[in-house]
Amino acid sequence: MTHAAMHTRFTQRFHLSTPIALAPMALATGGALAAACAQAGALGLVGGGYGDLAWTQREYTLARALLTNDAASQARLGCGFITWKLDENADALDWVLSQQPSAIMLSFGDPRPYAARIAQAGAPLICQVQRLDQVPLAIEAGASVIVAQGGEAGGHGANALEGRSTFTLVPEIADHLAAHAPHTLLLAAGGVADGRGLAAALMLGADGVLVGSRLWATTESLAATNAKTQATQTNGDGTARSQVFDILRRKNWPAPYDFRAIRNDLHRRLESDMAALAANPEAARADYDAGVKAGDFSRAHATVGEAVGLIADVPSAGEVIARMTQHAHSLLAK
Amino acid sequence: MTHAAMHTRFTQRFHLSTPIALAPMALATGGALAAACAQAGALGLVGGGYGDLAWTQREYTLARALLTNDAASQARLGCGFITWKLDENADALDWVLSQQPSAIMLSFGDPRPYAARIAQAGAPLICQVQRLDQVPLAIEAGASVIVAQGGEAGGHGANALEGRSTFTLVPEIADHLAAHAPHTLLLAAGGVADGRGLAAALMLGADGVLVGSRLWATTESLAATNAKTQATQTNGDGTARSQVFDILRRKNWPAPYDFRAIRNDLHRRLESDMAALAANPEAARADYDAGVKAGDFSRAHATVGEAVGLIADVPSAGEVIARMTQHAHSLLAK
Repeated sequence: MTHAAMHTRFTQRFHLSTPIALAPMALATGGALAAACAQAGALGLVGGGYGDLAWTQREYTLARALLTNDAASQARLGCGFITWKLDENADALDWVLSQQPSAIMLSFGDPRPYAARIAQAGAPLICQVQRLDQVPLAIEAGASVIVAQGGEAGGHGANALEGRSTFTLVPEIADHLAAHAPHTLLLAAGGVADGRGLAAALMLGADGVLVGSRLWATTESLAATNAKTQATQTNGDGTARSQVFDILRRKNWPAPYDFRAIRNDLHRRLESDMAALAANPEAARADYDAGVKAGDFSRAHATVGEAVGLIADVPSAGEVIARMTQHAHSLLAK
Repeated sequence: MTHAAMHTRFTQRFHLSTPIALAPMALATGGALAAACAQAGALGLVGGGYGDLAWTQREYTLARALLTNDAASQARLGCGFITWKLDENADALDWVLSQQPSAIMLSFGDPRPYAARIAQAGAPLICQVQRLDQVPLAIEAGASVIVAQGGEAGGHGANALEGRSTFTLVPEIADHLAAHAPHTLLLAAGGVADGRGLAAALMLGADGVLVGSRLWATTESLAATNAKTQATQTNGDGTARSQVFDILRRKNWPAPYDFRAIRNDLHRRLESDMAALAANPEAARADYDAGVKAGDFSRAHATVGEAVGLIADVPSAGEVIARMTQHAHSLLAK
């Protein structure tokens, strides 16, 4: 495919050719996927995730190595972290900041303790939020970009009671930024998987989109092959948001966050009584661990959001970005 | 404001000047609101709701009376019903069908038992769904229009575990209809409250939108004045979806449906333990009933969705429709 370009304030600020950022998905967004997105003109955010220093060093270094002699694409690399994990250990952030990243994205926690060192390193700060009431903290932290993440997103997000959805969160934050921080850009996240989603996000007032699930299901993603196959066979009704997989994985996420993934057999067996699972998780954990070991995704989790219903193949990341850009371009040109 | 027009397959099929349908909100969408929307060029669906014959007769008759000598607007009147309530008593549907309505909308249940009599009366059938897997039943019932309702909608919808959000449900159903029922139209519902939402819905593949909350907060709506005032002061973080108000109101809704409204003080006190509330509701019901009697919306419920964060005033319905149409038109013309 030819590389259609599309420009917004986001592409201008970050030297992109399309207003798309790769979601820094923990364990799935490695260096190869980030490099491929950067090469395709998007912002490639490595998934620093839980802040594992060795993993982050390896994958970030890989991304840079894959882009040797391509300074333009190297300038589209950054890294994302889970903020409340940085509160325990920020070594991985500090290492990335020594590499002159083009952006640091923080999600799930208070970004303000990290704002000064990120600014000092010259990296623009991208703050992901799940509710309107988290936006003032992000502005206070000096965010260059706010990512408005709706609950339809795969992986972690705000739970059903506290969370919001993309369709209303984006325009409401756009209004807030227009009134209080007009130079802060806005990306839509959660449910954006094709050109229609990109075009719709721009109509809602976003300057671009952050794409998770659709780029998770690509050749470069580190997600397991069986999980990608399961995703292509699952429609959008087939995911659920709950604490099930966090409890099974011994992830001690704070409120109000939980986790969306494919609602597989194990999830269905456990989802109706979270208190019982939390009180007595051992048998279910053994079942889950065996599923992970066997690559059996009726028990292991496949981390995708509702947009999985728009995903029917596993192409390269470059192909995904070209398709999205071209389709959005043609819809908006009509 | 001048009356901007915008045309899609939906406006052509239903003789509208803008691709907007009024949501038939039980108890809020009376004859005055439906008539005002029809006059503004939208589809005006009276809220037949729980199937109360006297209420439906009164409000539908009022809508027609308000449009005396305006045949074009009268031809934009229809009525909506809660399907599982029709299973108990369909007298109100049968009465409306005797009035030559321009559309019948059914939500929350199997539409097939009512398809034949609706077709015989010459009324196009509009079926609202909350999940992709409900679409085949609607097609089988001969639906002219599918409404894809995301969980961000106010009032009844699918619960968090079973439900979907507008941003992913609309394009996925658009793909399904393109493959299986290309002449069936698609409306987006849930979170659509301004021109941005209308434009975004069209980008996602809808032929138009169904608008609830934004038209609930108008002068013609039958919602209580105090509730409308509370809505203008609430942002989009301030609603919640749960069974709380259905339990308090003794509404025996079947799974997987629950109810989104403003998350007021009473809701917050009760939301953490639904089983306890269901087992022992009497004290909370007394509190709720007293709140309703007093017009105290810290206890009574205000039925709006996440789009409440985009609602800051209580204008006429005609003004709302003109604003939405003009803004969407200008966004799409860019």
